[in-house]
Amino acid sequence: MTQPTHLIGVDIGGTNLRVALANVKGEIVARVATTTTNVREPRSVIEKIRECAQRLLEDARLSLEHVAAIGAGAPGLTDAENGVVIATSYLMGWRDVPLKAMLEDALGVPASVDNDVNLAALGESRFGAGRGLKDFVFISIGTGVGAGIILNGELFQGPAWTAGEIGYMLVPGTSEVPPALGEPGGLEGLVGGEGLRSRWQSQWSREKTQLPRELTATQIFDAAVAGDDLAIGILDLAARTLAYAIFDITLILNTPLFVLGGSVGLHAALRDRTQAVLEMHARRLRPKLVLSALGGDAQLMGAIRLAQIVPHVSEEP
Amino acid sequence: MTQPTHLIGVDIGGTNLRVALANVKGEIVARVATTTTNVREPRSVIEKIRECAQRLLEDARLSLEHVAAIGAGAPGLTDAENGVVIATSYLMGWRDVPLKAMLEDALGVPASVDNDVNLAALGESRFGAGRGLKDFVFISIGTGVGAGIILNGELFQGPAWTAGEIGYMLVPGTSEVPPALGEPGGLEGLVGGEGLRSRWQSQWSREKTQLPRELTATQIFDAAVAGDDLAIGILDLAARTLAYAIFDITLILNTPLFVLGGSVGLHAALRDRTQAVLEMHARRLRPKLVLSALGGDAQLMGAIRLAQIVPHVSEEP
Repeated sequence: MTQPTHLIGVDIGGTNLRVALANVKGEIVARVATTTTNVREPRSVIEKIRECAQRLLEDARLSLEHVAAIGAGAPGLTDAENGVVIATSYLMGWRDVPLKAMLEDALGVPASVDNDVNLAALGESRFGAGRGLKDFVFISIGTGVGAGIILNGELFQGPAWTAGEIGYMLVPGTSEVPPALGEPGGLEGLVGGEGLRSRWQSQWSREKTQLPRELTATQIFDAAVAGDDLAIGILDLAARTLAYAIFDITLILNTPLFVLGGSVGLHAALRDRTQAVLEMHARRLRPKLVLSALGGDAQLMGAIRLAQIVPHVSEEP
Repeated sequence: MTQPTHLIGVDIGGTNLRVALANVKGEIVARVATTTTNVREPRSVIEKIRECAQRLLEDARLSLEHVAAIGAGAPGLTDAENGVVIATSYLMGWRDVPLKAMLEDALGVPASVDNDVNLAALGESRFGAGRGLKDFVFISIGTGVGAGIILNGELFQGPAWTAGEIGYMLVPGTSEVPPALGEPGGLEGLVGGEGLRSRWQSQWSREKTQLPRELTATQIFDAAVAGDDLAIGILDLAARTLAYAIFDITLILNTPLFVLGGSVGLHAALRDRTQAVLEMHARRLRPKLVLSALGGDAQLMGAIRLAQIVPHVSEEP
């Protein structure tokens, strides 16, 4: 019988599907990315994953027999225990998809699944900025805002699988009006990419800035660093709001480190200004903010980590 | 050799010391209370505890040989692992007091210690409103505000022993100016007994209310229930602020139940109005608020529970 020597990690995104082949130490040996545009149906996504995995294995002169386990994540609420994606964002539109069972059926190897932010936290925990730390919080800031919580070296998913859904947090400055379904939550409205863009647009005028009315969140932060007053105001508000949320999380959890990731969260100017606000409020605890070490690979590395710790895998390090 | 059949629980407060003798099931068989006014020095408090324990045992025709363990709590920051009270409020003024070791020296039985709010959470978890629940948060609202967090059936103390120090939380409405040392924190300023009293006084005028300028927090809440407009405004603000904090904690931890205790927290009107605000903001999760079942005994029952689970006690249920 062939001894499993490899793992497969899968990052299912709203626009991209990424599959990696790794050795049992978690080192990626080959990877492939493909689009998920027009591929929404769970069965079609599973078929794409199978194709990608097969291609990676064939190129490496391996077969599915060499694969010990597969780890996968999708954006949305996931019951990790039963391996069911309960709900994803409107991009995917999944409801109660038994992702773990479907992967195991399609590939014939043990599978484990979780949501993308939790996977990113797991990736940073094992291979990135949280390596060697027992307690930290990964905060993903992209279009939306979410957190993956590592307590005592393990992912804390919460009794309802939604621990860390911090995009809806209420802190000074956030709207007190409950957001409608599909609208950004309190914290997201001031810190998330979509909220930042619309704030720039609503405050924009030719008198206030020479920059165009259409900017992405990272372009706004770049403009703030370059000295644009309108952009500085928006960056400062985002930093203050994020600092308040991190301060509150520290009071509740005592986590000494926060790893910032996601396309918006990786901007150094946001980290620097948020840390400066935190210093003013910190009391006994002074949470430290660092940027994600894995960047856009955090989820994929977390998926590989998940495959490493799938029950009954003999090589669990 | 005598088989230990009893436990001792100790609640060290800023003004009162309470000691209880319980059987190994945690049922109190006798109790005694004494003042701690003018007794500040740790050694004197330990001596008072020893006297109280001796008296309880003698009355029950027992001796220290019958005591399996002692559990004790003091208000303040406690390193439960090493049994050291790191700091208490100005009332006690303790710094780095090795309470566990001092109790074991004085009484000759295994001891375990934690802070008062954590003990109350433990008490509610085992004997009170959280019985049978794996995940809930106990919120103590007296002069100040703090939380004891039960996750997966166990006390979550946090890596720095200050998990649940929610009195400093920042939510919409709280001051964004960091409080000076000894001043109430953000949440405390609007929800804690001291903050409520001073808000009543600063807003009070003969035109606004017929009630006196000196009222306690619970008197203000009573006045709100009786229809006093000024009191209603203060209660509503406290309820809204508390609801926001609970909402944020739910997003982070997913805890479905919050047990409200402490002299102010036990007021039903605060619970009812806070629950009503929460209903408007709740999304997937709808945290339920209930009043403490143990009331003023929560800490003492928690101390007894702590004695039950002291390592090496044979009767751990």
